Amino acid sequence: MFLWLRRLLVGSPLPNWRAQHERLSKILALPVFASDALSSVAYATEEILLVLVIAGTAVIVHRDISLLIAVGIVTLLAIVATSYRQTIHAYPSGGGSYIVAKDNLGMYPGLIAGSALMIDYTLTVAVSVAAGVAAITSALPQYEHYRLALCLFFVALIALANLRGVRESGLLFSLPTYTFILSIFTLIGVGLFRMHTSGLHVPPPPQHLIHTQEMAGITIFLILRAFASGCTALTGVEAISNGIPAFRPPESKNAATTLTWMAVILGCMFVGISYLAWKGHVVPIEPLTNGHPTKGYETVISQIARAVFSTPGIKWFYYVIQSATAGILILAANTSFADFPRLGSIMARDRFLPRQLFNLGDRLVYSNGIMLLGLLACGLIWLFKGDTNSLIPLYAVGVFLSFTLSQAGMVRHAKRLRERGWRRSAAISAVGSVTTGVVTLVIAYTKFIFGAWIVVLLIPCLVLLFSRIHEHYIELGNELRLTPEDEFEPIHHTVIVLTPSIHRGVLKALEYAKSLAADVRAVHVETDPVDTAIMEDRWEQWGGGIPLVILESQYRSLISPVLEYLEEAKREREDCMITVVIPEFVPKKWWHKALHNQSGILLKFALLFRRDIVTTNIRYYVGK
Amino acid sequence: MFLWLRRLLVGSPLPNWRAQHERLSKILALPVFASDALSSVAYATEEILLVLVIAGTAVIVHRDISLLIAVGIVTLLAIVATSYRQTIHAYPSGGGSYIVAKDNLGMYPGLIAGSALMIDYTLTVAVSVAAGVAAITSALPQYEHYRLALCLFFVALIALANLRGVRESGLLFSLPTYTFILSIFTLIGVGLFRMHTSGLHVPPPPQHLIHTQEMAGITIFLILRAFASGCTALTGVEAISNGIPAFRPPESKNAATTLTWMAVILGCMFVGISYLAWKGHVVPIEPLTNGHPTKGYETVISQIARAVFSTPGIKWFYYVIQSATAGILILAANTSFADFPRLGSIMARDRFLPRQLFNLGDRLVYSNGIMLLGLLACGLIWLFKGDTNSLIPLYAVGVFLSFTLSQAGMVRHAKRLRERGWRRSAAISAVGSVTTGVVTLVIAYTKFIFGAWIVVLLIPCLVLLFSRIHEHYIELGNELRLTPEDEFEPIHHTVIVLTPSIHRGVLKALEYAKSLAADVRAVHVETDPVDTAIMEDRWEQWGGGIPLVILESQYRSLISPVLEYLEEAKREREDCMITVVIPEFVPKKWWHKALHNQSGILLKFALLFRRDIVTTNIRYYVGK
Repeated sequence: MFLWLRRLLVGSPLPNWRAQHERLSKILALPVFASDALSSVAYATEEILLVLVIAGTAVIVHRDISLLIAVGIVTLLAIVATSYRQTIHAYPSGGGSYIVAKDNLGMYPGLIAGSALMIDYTLTVAVSVAAGVAAITSALPQYEHYRLALCLFFVALIALANLRGVRESGLLFSLPTYTFILSIFTLIGVGLFRMHTSGLHVPPPPQHLIHTQEMAGITIFLILRAFASGCTALTGVEAISNGIPAFRPPESKNAATTLTWMAVILGCMFVGISYLAWKGHVVPIEPLTNGHPTKGYETVISQIARAVFSTPGIKWFYYVIQSATAGILILAANTSFADFPRLGSIMARDRFLPRQLFNLGDRLVYSNGIMLLGLLACGLIWLFKGDTNSLIPLYAVGVFLSFTLSQAGMVRHAKRLRERGWRRSAAISAVGSVTTGVVTLVIAYTKFIFGAWIVVLLIPCLVLLFSRIHEHYIELGNELRLTPEDEFEPIHHTVIVLTPSIHRGVLKALEYAKSLAADVRAVHVETDPVDTAIMEDRWEQWGGGIPLVILESQYRSLISPVLEYLEEAKREREDCMITVVIPEFVPKKWWHKALHNQSGILLKFALLFRRDIVTTNIRYYVGK
Repeated sequence: MFLWLRRLLVGSPLPNWRAQHERLSKILALPVFASDALSSVAYATEEILLVLVIAGTAVIVHRDISLLIAVGIVTLLAIVATSYRQTIHAYPSGGGSYIVAKDNLGMYPGLIAGSALMIDYTLTVAVSVAAGVAAITSALPQYEHYRLALCLFFVALIALANLRGVRESGLLFSLPTYTFILSIFTLIGVGLFRMHTSGLHVPPPPQHLIHTQEMAGITIFLILRAFASGCTALTGVEAISNGIPAFRPPESKNAATTLTWMAVILGCMFVGISYLAWKGHVVPIEPLTNGHPTKGYETVISQIARAVFSTPGIKWFYYVIQSATAGILILAANTSFADFPRLGSIMARDRFLPRQLFNLGDRLVYSNGIMLLGLLACGLIWLFKGDTNSLIPLYAVGVFLSFTLSQAGMVRHAKRLRERGWRRSAAISAVGSVTTGVVTLVIAYTKFIFGAWIVVLLIPCLVLLFSRIHEHYIELGNELRLTPEDEFEPIHHTVIVLTPSIHRGVLKALEYAKSLAADVRAVHVETDPVDTAIMEDRWEQWGGGIPLVILESQYRSLISPVLEYLEEAKREREDCMITVVIPEFVPKKWWHKALHNQSGILLKFALLFRRDIVTTNIRYYVGK
């Protein structure tokens, strides 16, 4: 029943030889690895504007700044992408920041990068799904009520798709990604055309939705905070460098090309949307209630799309934009479902995570990692009630921290190997590392009180946990490792059969015990001397020559005399192993079990923690 | 911790030799076995009056009938007691109605008597405790609120006392019983004296408490119903005949004497109280709310005692009466705690009940039966919210049914043995049987709609259950019984050790396996060919000459290749037993367990229901 359901949902097991074929062409790899990065277009502009608008009276002035910030972020994107192309070539087997930092900077930087990434993968799932559902509820406000349920449903759906396998994911996810890219470029194109012909008219937000108490002037802190919020656009850029082994050969070359494509597409879309928002005077509305979007809250993309496609006859394209946005956002979570389990497996291989995350499941994916991520993301969404804007401040700290460490590692790497052109490489990486390092500090500083503190606290905790796990595995390995002093030593063996009476089930146990060792003894706890006499009599015939030991039970307990006898038998020979054979009969119907004494089970529990005593149940099936 | 608590509450285990000493003298046996019967005095008169008063306008007339009914019941008591004296002599090993009916009338009458008794023992506990608590709340109405909690507390207390052992019960319970007998006789004596000197003045009940809508005339049905209610006075009379082995030798003679004493004391008290109630114009108040006593509801005994000891200076004796009544009622439940487990043990010996009820616990009492009765009684009290009057209609049907069957059995017994004076014995038993048979029908008929139907339905259900259990044990016995064809046959034995890798834990398992059989094989499921090569290499040194079988796993599952291999090994030889040795290491800290694959456990589950395959875990304790 369980197996049937599992097969229906996840599919039949795949044999090993199919592993090589589960690789992605560039066309399929882009949706799988880039949907996270590309989808940030859906919220990055909005996050910048949110910071600026709530703070200022002079909305227009601030929005000028917003365009400058957008340009700055695209520059940052160019730096990071260039830097990561080198990483892809240097580490064709993948692993991204964790591997690069660990290889070049040492264990702790590696663990910091690893935990930062894990946190951000989880946040990516939560933020993307929440933003995707926001795109749906912007178009269809009547479903606002089911926001949380929709979020959880989508996480479960993506997890399931990933449990089925990576190739199927590529096919399934390419359609929405490409639809999104095309429709955003259409939006930008039509928007630019209309702006220079008829002009764009975004309706101003209802006055009561605009906060009035916070009409402070613009400060450097605010600009930095807006910049920090916009940096969420870069999340997911590193995804490709983690997933190189999933590309078709030549893996590195294909991955680098895909990375460049992705950066260019992302940059164009982000600048285009930011330009339209600036020109179209779009004002995002800060949620009125503490941390929860007000009923009727509309995303920036939704507002732009409504304005651009306001002419009757092309209004339907608004819904194309919204569904494509929702689609890519929800699928962006998929990037994490490809990377989190892979990182988990690599860290488990290095013994920083439980071994269960290491193995491929029977569909050739890291099933345990996928399930773990699904659960964590659901927990996070549930905690933050599926609200994008309260999740955003936690986001990006981890990503930029791992960028910084990874690129710092690449500087070390170039210096160490001193291959052709290493100076240029090192310089590129150094620029990238310093830039992202500064951005990390900016993000952590400006968003600290808004939620970044959680991540700042969590990273050292995870590093500690990972190193404790590592310690355990290393210690265990040392304990278990065979050394030249270890030898195969034959052991002395005593078998003791519990015989409450003598019947067919016991006979089977006696036969079994006799085949185990030369030293076999049957033990009977006397409850009634008459029974004992009968038993001794029958023993002649069916005992098979095994000595029968009668134990007296002063207190009518079956357990304690046996335990005492076992202690005694152990004292006889120090090097001896004792096997206790417990005959058990399995009745035909389950309720019949209630009709029999459970002393066998009790004894098994009593012996569970005794060393050098092994218990074995011999089952006799009644009525065949 | 659990053991310590158990020892504190129940006491240390008692050795077997103390069994003989756990016998009761007549003085101690009376409280243990007669408290049930004697305590009925506390409610039997009231139950008669309740039926008559609610029905009639002419209270005085009806109460005349009440005295007649009381005399009738005492006559019945004399008949039953005389009849049971014979049973005691005929069956010195005890067992009462169940044994007598089964021996003489056959299995089904025996089972009917047995289930009737079990139901009544449970009801005795519930009714007695509920009535005892009513005596407390009659004197102290402010505790009315805690009625249910008090009931459950007392049941638990009595169960605990019985779990400690029968001798201690006798001592503990003799004081309240003898106090009760003395104080009731004092009440009757002083009452009679005052009646003929100053007269008795019971205040009439508040007018609003008397039902007016049911002022119908007296009918035969009502008289019969009142009689049926009064028959509760006879419950517990059979207790002594069930418990003969608990008497000091000569058991039968002592038991018969105790029975006579008990009947005389009971008869005198019952008639005395009924006479005082009649003369004193005591009117019990029917509860106003459906089945639940109204706040301030006062028992008949309480009203009489208040009137008798109304003179200042002797008022305190009212409280003596009430506490003695409460005491004996609550302890009356103890009779059932002595008899129910004993009957359970006898029926379990005859294989009509689960074997667990058969054995004496470590305090030389039938602990399982005591706990079972405690739970059943608590359930019943909880269901009926601790209300005596709603429990009464269920009561007595079972008792009289078992009286009838037992005495019918005695007629058969006398006829069969034809000992000296058998005609007289048979005649006495026949009179008893016919009388109680008629009373059974009267009770079942008049109380059917008031609750007796539950018991009438339950008895056949229990009989069916008991016979199903019996069937199972008999079948199982036949299946397990050794016949001359059964022989001790040496078996062929193959041991298979699962070796995921080779380390100290595995080495221990290999050494163990080697000591078990000549045919030992190690099985390794290949996950990585490199690992396999390393393993084969190290096998030379530590493998102890055991052949290493490498299994390929197409689907990366560890379980299915092993299962397939085991099937194959079984096919090799039909008569072969396979032992699968699973090495397991026990880490130092519990949370470390989460860091290891649980494939051993999974495999164990997968093999749990395979025949001829035995699994054995060999634990290796890490870090000693």
